[in-house]
Amino acid sequence: MERFLTAGQLARVAEVPAGARPYYRALADAVRDRILDGRLPVRVRMPAERHLAEALGVSRTTVTTAYDRLRGQGYLESRQGAGSWTALPDPSVCDGNPWVDDADDRLIPLHAAAPAACTQLEQAFADAAAGYHRFTLGMGYHPLGLPVLREAVAARYTARGLATRPDQIIVTTGAQHALHLLLTLLAAPGDPVLIESPTYSHAIDVLRLRGAHRVPVGIPADGRYVDLVVSAVRQSGARLAYLIPDFQNPTGHLMDAGDRARLAEAARRHGVTLLVDETWAELPLDEGTTVPPTGVFDSGNHVVTIGSASKLWWGGLRIGWIRGSAELVRRLAVQRAAVDIASAIFEQLAVARLFEVIEATRAERRRNLRASLAALVAVLREELPEWSFRVPTGGGSLWVRLDTPSATPLAEAAAAHGVRLAPGPWFGVDGALEGHLRLPFTLAPEVLTDAVRRIAAARGSQGARPRRSLTPAL
Amino acid sequence: MERFLTAGQLARVAEVPAGARPYYRALADAVRDRILDGRLPVRVRMPAERHLAEALGVSRTTVTTAYDRLRGQGYLESRQGAGSWTALPDPSVCDGNPWVDDADDRLIPLHAAAPAACTQLEQAFADAAAGYHRFTLGMGYHPLGLPVLREAVAARYTARGLATRPDQIIVTTGAQHALHLLLTLLAAPGDPVLIESPTYSHAIDVLRLRGAHRVPVGIPADGRYVDLVVSAVRQSGARLAYLIPDFQNPTGHLMDAGDRARLAEAARRHGVTLLVDETWAELPLDEGTTVPPTGVFDSGNHVVTIGSASKLWWGGLRIGWIRGSAELVRRLAVQRAAVDIASAIFEQLAVARLFEVIEATRAERRRNLRASLAALVAVLREELPEWSFRVPTGGGSLWVRLDTPSATPLAEAAAAHGVRLAPGPWFGVDGALEGHLRLPFTLAPEVLTDAVRRIAAARGSQGARPRRSLTPAL
Repeated sequence: MERFLTAGQLARVAEVPAGARPYYRALADAVRDRILDGRLPVRVRMPAERHLAEALGVSRTTVTTAYDRLRGQGYLESRQGAGSWTALPDPSVCDGNPWVDDADDRLIPLHAAAPAACTQLEQAFADAAAGYHRFTLGMGYHPLGLPVLREAVAARYTARGLATRPDQIIVTTGAQHALHLLLTLLAAPGDPVLIESPTYSHAIDVLRLRGAHRVPVGIPADGRYVDLVVSAVRQSGARLAYLIPDFQNPTGHLMDAGDRARLAEAARRHGVTLLVDETWAELPLDEGTTVPPTGVFDSGNHVVTIGSASKLWWGGLRIGWIRGSAELVRRLAVQRAAVDIASAIFEQLAVARLFEVIEATRAERRRNLRASLAALVAVLREELPEWSFRVPTGGGSLWVRLDTPSATPLAEAAAAHGVRLAPGPWFGVDGALEGHLRLPFTLAPEVLTDAVRRIAAARGSQGARPRRSLTPAL
Repeated sequence: MERFLTAGQLARVAEVPAGARPYYRALADAVRDRILDGRLPVRVRMPAERHLAEALGVSRTTVTTAYDRLRGQGYLESRQGAGSWTALPDPSVCDGNPWVDDADDRLIPLHAAAPAACTQLEQAFADAAAGYHRFTLGMGYHPLGLPVLREAVAARYTARGLATRPDQIIVTTGAQHALHLLLTLLAAPGDPVLIESPTYSHAIDVLRLRGAHRVPVGIPADGRYVDLVVSAVRQSGARLAYLIPDFQNPTGHLMDAGDRARLAEAARRHGVTLLVDETWAELPLDEGTTVPPTGVFDSGNHVVTIGSASKLWWGGLRIGWIRGSAELVRRLAVQRAAVDIASAIFEQLAVARLFEVIEATRAERRRNLRASLAALVAVLREELPEWSFRVPTGGGSLWVRLDTPSATPLAEAAAAHGVRLAPGPWFGVDGALEGHLRLPFTLAPEVLTDAVRRIAAARGSQGARPRRSLTPAL
């Protein structure tokens, strides 16, 4: 039996704030809030527009515009001639998806942990501009990557203590592309794949896209979870694991050398391939903080490493890489014939040049990240002392434990105060983690200070009412 | 029961040419040729290295090196301590895969149809270098593409007669990436997808990767195949078709306006989405050759268009785009969160600039492609008059009909004469098309003249013996 709302019922339930302008927006937002807090169930038929207009004493156009807004945001579904029903948005198609619409507003982008370009980029681009000409006589397709960059990446691994030949490297169009290539090759739909919980949100996206069975291993407060990984492997039969031992995203944990050795040994014993994401590995906050790369402990192609130019240099470069066996690298290059052919030449030349001045960039990043982290920690302790966190030794984000499981409604309130947040559920597989927020320290100190004050104001405006969680796609 | 070869048998069958040097290579190539022509079956155990060395009167090292070469090429499989067996290569892992190894030799790259960069690229890169700075303050991630490029692409469609808004455009990392994104979203494993036969080889790759059921529609000599498409749709129940109406790759056919209208109408009637690849659409050989874009005939989101910077400007840019409904474009952008996040900023700025001078590039390309095509046609008629072809009115390749079904062995012979060829089976789904070669006219006239003379010499050296076809992965 169909459920429906009369115009009078909706007018009462919606609680449109008196005097709100523009009215259509206040009406739409009120309906959205009632759907989110559960007072309006989903799949309930909405009143006809003209009836609601009469009940509210507004023009029919106002109601039509409000319905359009709700439809665009995914809170309303309509069928031609049949009416409209309340709904929860499919995050992939609704307006206001932070992934697609982040350029359309002026919110402080605290939902992402990605720094602006390093100052060394300008010279690297100038060098690339001086050097790309000789490639323009060819077709421009290099599925494995340009030799000059493969050599630079291999040399950097070798310098970090992990002896590497250029034929073990394939250049990719960023770390996400690297992970997507690897999972396309190595994971079939339904395969169990072990991940940390919380973990990098777009890793969850690609596992979902691939149809893999996600096996989360919770990271305890002390960051020691190798034993949990081993038992999860035993119980799930997973032959693949995606892990971030270096300044884990989002928790910031750095796995120590002993745990890395035990992890690699367990991978060998159980025939597991570890996909190790080193996106943040070059960014300890203190020059002295070094742990050998996980690959050092590998005794036979059980560790495949993913690297990225995004956090160290700039995300707009879209350059990453994979280190694996020469055979794996060739298989990935062949697979690219079906996926994207190759990566852009100019950026590869720029990144090869950036490797030559990597220590200058690392020093700059350390300086900036330390200052931003200090500002973030200070303003959090001042404005939100009931929140807790562990200060990491590297990476780009703070994993904050809230005093209530309210990250998603807080993120919505913060958006109204000018800040876009990444609530905990983005980093988990089952909509849990409502008690956490990831706060990046990749923006300037004064921006972070301003942002946290806005978050505190948003929290104050919320009241204590817990609301139903809406888990977005990313 | 295991089959095996004695050293004496192999020494006789191999027919290593007398005096060939280096001997290890001649031995390996002879064994490979016997496997390819079927005189050595696959999965036959090879003699032990020392026995074969004795039978041939060469050092054991020579035989070891020959076996290594065969293993690297995929014609031999070995198990530690158990021996070696003849095999047919898995094209994804063997040495000499033209996709992965094209930079390693000096062969004339006639296997690809992709021109060198246009002369306008230099100014566009300089402009991008002057303009990218304002983006470096941000994270650099724009899943939909930069507004300036989306506007330029939309304006170009509109100028070509297909009214387009920027929100109907998503920028991709090349046309292959565009097709991969679309098939990931729209085709499930096992779904029938209609393609032309022959068709673009990497489209076959991505359908294979996706696990789609490929439904080929043969292109007749007159290029009129819309009726065949319609009956194949009826019989297969395909809801997706990948087509190249504009200077079809590899045949060069240009579908006329009437056929486009009938195609779009059939798509509407049968609920089929047409993925129309316009990679070559901007490159007629004569300025006067224009047919409206297929999308003009669309009456409701049944035509999705793929475009590319590769052939018009340069493949090393890795920029393409998709034109579809605003909703489709948003879904694709959301999907990129799992696939590759976004495309490189610098190249997007360069391509936006290149759109402003598109007519200069098109005039340059027309001039060069006409000259190259004339040289190719002339040398083919002179050197290989028994081959036949239809001279296309645009695009970048000639689809040549050989006098014998021998494209794959000819390609192998041509490689020994310094030319890498694209044999017909690359462009089909079932290893047929051995009677065809695709010859691109994207290289300079003198290179093409030299290349065809080498092909003629290779053909002369082959003899008339037909050999078994080996279908590669691309």
